[in-house]
Amino acid sequence: MEYNPIYLDIVWVLFATVLVFLMQAGFAMLEAGATRAKNAANIIMKNVMDISIGSLVFWMIGFGFMFGANESGLIGTSNFFLSDIDPSTDTGMFDFSFFIFQTVFAATAATIISGAVSERTKFAAYLIYTVAVTAFIYPIFGSWVWGGGWLSELGDNGFMDFAGSTVVHSVGGWAALAGAIVVGPRLGKFIDGKPVAIPGHSITLAALGVFILWFGWFGFNAGSTVSGNDASIAIIAVTTLLAAAAGSVGSMALSYILWKRFDASMTLNGVIGGLVAITAGTANVSPAMAVIIGLIGGFVVVAAVVLLERKLKVDDPVGAIAVHGFAGAWGTIAVGLFASASYGGVDGLFFGGGAGQLIVQITGVVAAFAFVFPTSFIVFKAIDMTIGMRASDEDQIRGLDISEHEAAGYPDFAPSIPLSSTSTVVPSGAAVPAGAAIDEIPENETSA
Amino acid sequence: MEYNPIYLDIVWVLFATVLVFLMQAGFAMLEAGATRAKNAANIIMKNVMDISIGSLVFWMIGFGFMFGANESGLIGTSNFFLSDIDPSTDTGMFDFSFFIFQTVFAATAATIISGAVSERTKFAAYLIYTVAVTAFIYPIFGSWVWGGGWLSELGDNGFMDFAGSTVVHSVGGWAALAGAIVVGPRLGKFIDGKPVAIPGHSITLAALGVFILWFGWFGFNAGSTVSGNDASIAIIAVTTLLAAAAGSVGSMALSYILWKRFDASMTLNGVIGGLVAITAGTANVSPAMAVIIGLIGGFVVVAAVVLLERKLKVDDPVGAIAVHGFAGAWGTIAVGLFASASYGGVDGLFFGGGAGQLIVQITGVVAAFAFVFPTSFIVFKAIDMTIGMRASDEDQIRGLDISEHEAAGYPDFAPSIPLSSTSTVVPSGAAVPAGAAIDEIPENETSA
Amino acid sequence: MEYNPIYLDIVWVLFATVLVFLMQAGFAMLEAGATRAKNAANIIMKNVMDISIGSLVFWMIGFGFMFGANESGLIGTSNFFLSDIDPSTDTGMFDFSFFIFQTVFAATAATIISGAVSERTKFAAYLIYTVAVTAFIYPIFGSWVWGGGWLSELGDNGFMDFAGSTVVHSVGGWAALAGAIVVGPRLGKFIDGKPVAIPGHSITLAALGVFILWFGWFGFNAGSTVSGNDASIAIIAVTTLLAAAAGSVGSMALSYILWKRFDASMTLNGVIGGLVAITAGTANVSPAMAVIIGLIGGFVVVAAVVLLERKLKVDDPVGAIAVHGFAGAWGTIAVGLFASASYGGVDGLFFGGGAGQLIVQITGVVAAFAFVFPTSFIVFKAIDMTIGMRASDEDQIRGLDISEHEAAGYPDFAPSIPLSSTSTVVPSGAAVPAGAAIDEIPENETSA
Repeated sequence: MEYNPIYLDIVWVLFATVLVFLMQAGFAMLEAGATRAKNAANIIMKNVMDISIGSLVFWMIGFGFMFGANESGLIGTSNFFLSDIDPSTDTGMFDFSFFIFQTVFAATAATIISGAVSERTKFAAYLIYTVAVTAFIYPIFGSWVWGGGWLSELGDNGFMDFAGSTVVHSVGGWAALAGAIVVGPRLGKFIDGKPVAIPGHSITLAALGVFILWFGWFGFNAGSTVSGNDASIAIIAVTTLLAAAAGSVGSMALSYILWKRFDASMTLNGVIGGLVAITAGTANVSPAMAVIIGLIGGFVVVAAVVLLERKLKVDDPVGAIAVHGFAGAWGTIAVGLFASASYGGVDGLFFGGGAGQLIVQITGVVAAFAFVFPTSFIVFKAIDMTIGMRASDEDQIRGLDISEHEAAGYPDFAPSIPLSSTSTVVPSGAAVPAGAAIDEIPENETSA
Repeated sequence: MEYNPIYLDIVWVLFATVLVFLMQAGFAMLEAGATRAKNAANIIMKNVMDISIGSLVFWMIGFGFMFGANESGLIGTSNFFLSDIDPSTDTGMFDFSFFIFQTVFAATAATIISGAVSERTKFAAYLIYTVAVTAFIYPIFGSWVWGGGWLSELGDNGFMDFAGSTVVHSVGGWAALAGAIVVGPRLGKFIDGKPVAIPGHSITLAALGVFILWFGWFGFNAGSTVSGNDASIAIIAVTTLLAAAAGSVGSMALSYILWKRFDASMTLNGVIGGLVAITAGTANVSPAMAVIIGLIGGFVVVAAVVLLERKLKVDDPVGAIAVHGFAGAWGTIAVGLFASASYGGVDGLFFGGGAGQLIVQITGVVAAFAFVFPTSFIVFKAIDMTIGMRASDEDQIRGLDISEHEAAGYPDFAPSIPLSSTSTVVPSGAAVPAGAAIDEIPENETSA
Repeated sequence: MEYNPIYLDIVWVLFATVLVFLMQAGFAMLEAGATRAKNAANIIMKNVMDISIGSLVFWMIGFGFMFGANESGLIGTSNFFLSDIDPSTDTGMFDFSFFIFQTVFAATAATIISGAVSERTKFAAYLIYTVAVTAFIYPIFGSWVWGGGWLSELGDNGFMDFAGSTVVHSVGGWAALAGAIVVGPRLGKFIDGKPVAIPGHSITLAALGVFILWFGWFGFNAGSTVSGNDASIAIIAVTTLLAAAAGSVGSMALSYILWKRFDASMTLNGVIGGLVAITAGTANVSPAMAVIIGLIGGFVVVAAVVLLERKLKVDDPVGAIAVHGFAGAWGTIAVGLFASASYGGVDGLFFGGGAGQLIVQITGVVAAFAFVFPTSFIVFKAIDMTIGMRASDEDQIRGLDISEHEAAGYPDFAPSIPLSSTSTVVPSGAAVPAGAAIDEIPENETSA
């Protein structure tokens, strides 16, 4: 039998696909663990449905918009329902593997949003938004970078975003920002303008989610070669591991400096921040630079959480905007600074390549925000003005599991109820989060 | 070095094997999450032991019965303890990889049953049954289809069940039906003939289980090429993803129509229903037909849950019979309707191929039920009449964790106890499930 | 395209790497589930940080000590910061894949320790120890076996430890023993010299951890070929599966004989014991011998737990010392007994090869203990005498989540509080573990 490299390519792409697929479980566990028990079923339903609806919609039209023939440089216009793929050839089969890999990427962008709007968004509203992001917002921006569009032709080498710090993560993050603003903060999150800690209900599930995401990210980054006959998958895996490791160290260190404690949720978010940050340059930087990119990514997460919660008064229960939006932007820009031609691609500013690529990178980052935030904002506003985005105060107090799904996530366990329940109802009518009733929680608790 | 395709084949089969292996964790989490906290350790023990005992028994005799020399067309008769495999050759090594892939399949069939008989079955009885299913029931039926037996020679193309909608899932499902009937419903499940909702103790673990199963299913289906030098693994992955996505949409939609709520447990079961349904035809249908098969699979799950619980009064705590038995039968028949020669294999009825294959498919589905249900029923009855299947009422009230394992699954958490506990004991002596004591649960709650 | 085997090698090594990486999640879930809810965030933080810090430290110096040029046979002295790897060649890329595979191995050795010292060790102390183990202790011993050092040249074939029963698991286990002795038992573990059961807070998370570890172990063992162009990965996967299956049967059976119950935590530890035991000989024994090695591994775990807890009065909350230290030693010695040249390598004592290899194996096992236990003991003592190892009694009672991280792992759930709390405070001031307050737990409960 003669060697046909396409088989190893397909094996590799499918291997990477299933890893990225499992990130859905990672997001589900992280988001559920980082929010309250009374909304767990709702979080789960959103995560199951965004991969389900996202896959169907991306198959129908998203993939065509992103990777179809793209003469305008602005949007693809063919291959809807995979109509251009010939199933009778090995090349057609490779195209199927490319499609499924891209589909789980699209679902990743969609699921990022669910965390940021969790605990107060109506389920039906979320479903509609998932269609919008996987059918239009993600694919259109994606076509500019990965579908042969205008950003891919900018400068000497085009906008460099190897695995999607911007294309997937910042896009998801900026859409999440728009969603969180439109739906408003959770009942009781800000009292007299000051943020109130609302701790998540399971640190173990949150951590499990982070480990699964880290696991899946090896597929996310190394799979983006879309080829197994490409030895660079090895350095990609190395930079992915080290950047995540440095991200957790960075977030833990900075939060220790700020608050004098080893903060678990910040550390977990630091892992993801490191991963998001390295994603753009994973194939083009040295291990040492990956460590720096990840470490700064960890700092960025903590700074952005503080900025969003304390200054901008945006309520993001899981830190998705900081982690995906801000760290994604940082990582994309970092390519223009730290890329090294000896690892493929170009030399960045600090490696003697001048500012050219850096300017291209910044342009792409700005373009992502300029396109995604306003369009997402309009979509969320349109949903809000028609069927409504926000669950009622009463439903938020009861929890969305009851109001949206008529189920309890954990019926066998007694909820932690304050001994004197009257004192826990604040003037605004918001119930103090269950966690706050545990007297061991210190007064100075703050959280992402 | 010259290319020897066997290495990529072994790599692919082992990759698929570990994915299918992890489905054991998926089943464990789904089953535990969908049942009560007081039986969690028992569920876990059953799941650990069915892969353990199942692997040993399948190695000793099951594999030989299924894939050994099969002159009668009814059962294999060689290769017990892998005695025919030569470890000194690459081909022998490939045979080892084939064995382990088949072993995790056998363990899947076995574990399906554990959910259906959960919360009231004695542990020792379950262990014995696991031996019976992995040594005899699964391998014998399997030999008819995949071991060169009579079903594989039926009609022009043989009975088509690419990855086991019938061979694994319906076999597991019909055995589960027999077990659930013999052991009877859980104490308190039916009161005056009406089913009572007994919600599971952790929606997050149940969802995690479903995501892991979905992840593993890519190995289950695409691994069934038993070759990495086969580009069709790509279309298999695509149809697997899309059918599952459509299954969740189908179950969520139908349950919304029936009960006006977005039901989480039905939606989760819809994912599995879609996966089970596509398994038979995953390599032989187009993406669009996969969506239809999965969507109907989602409908079938809801309909079968209602049929079993309301009409047949069968108590299946996790919906295993509906999901694996019924959706498996549907998916197997669907091959006769939707298969398309352009995706390999034959044309089904709707693609101009006539009714021939459809009749073969129906024959196989009927044969599975006709063989598995009675033999399983006899085995369960024999166990019941000797060591006994059913845990006592007292043990069910205390929970099997205490009665069987002298341990508590969650000793650090307070159980949800009704405020006035006397009013929650129904005349039959059944304790009202803990979940029902939470007053937020609506009166009209019904569940799988 | 001509065939270049390096691509399949890299694909295989990265596949194995990500599986081993996920074992971090497995350890985290197992350790968290097997300990109390009030320490869950602390366990999680330790597990996130040991892979993070471990990866960075191993990249900086550990890898060089272990695999750098090793003229003395005692320690490697080059390739720090991967300085010897040339990223411009495919061979260099393979070296990167080898590095990352070895890095996740080093992190495994580190994380083993976290379980044994859990629930009473200061977080900062643990971080320092993690640096010591991944920078020095693990790499130095590793260099003796896998880095061309003196143990690799012992006897006719060198010390045989294919995937690290000793190099990874016993090393981790003996370091854990030193740590557990230095930090001392948890408050309330021994009362009047008798061990008190302190049950873990989540059997489902513990079981999930075990399944994930089992899953990851296929990468651990089969990846150790460091080549995908090597058909022996198939028999490795088979022996790994069967030994784990036999391990769970062995532990369950022996604990049933001893205590007349199907003990869940022992059974789960039996799986890991079987896996640890087969790791040394996974590529060199027949399936049947793998079953025997795993079965005895399961016995060893139970016996070692009893020995440590009842005789030596060592408190190891998760059984890590028994599972990794003792079962690892057993499995390494077993190579000298059960290895078979027809499966590669040499013939052991029972296969006509004489006692030569057995003596080498015993030498390696002794060397591991003789090097690791004292050096670890010194490191732990040094930490203890400077910043202090042990959390105060008050912090242990409140839980390390509050004292170290100012957070609660499960704020939404009510803890199980004894009805009459005065009676549960023992004279020593130790709070009786929450679980013990549940009156269903039998008096004769004992646990790992």
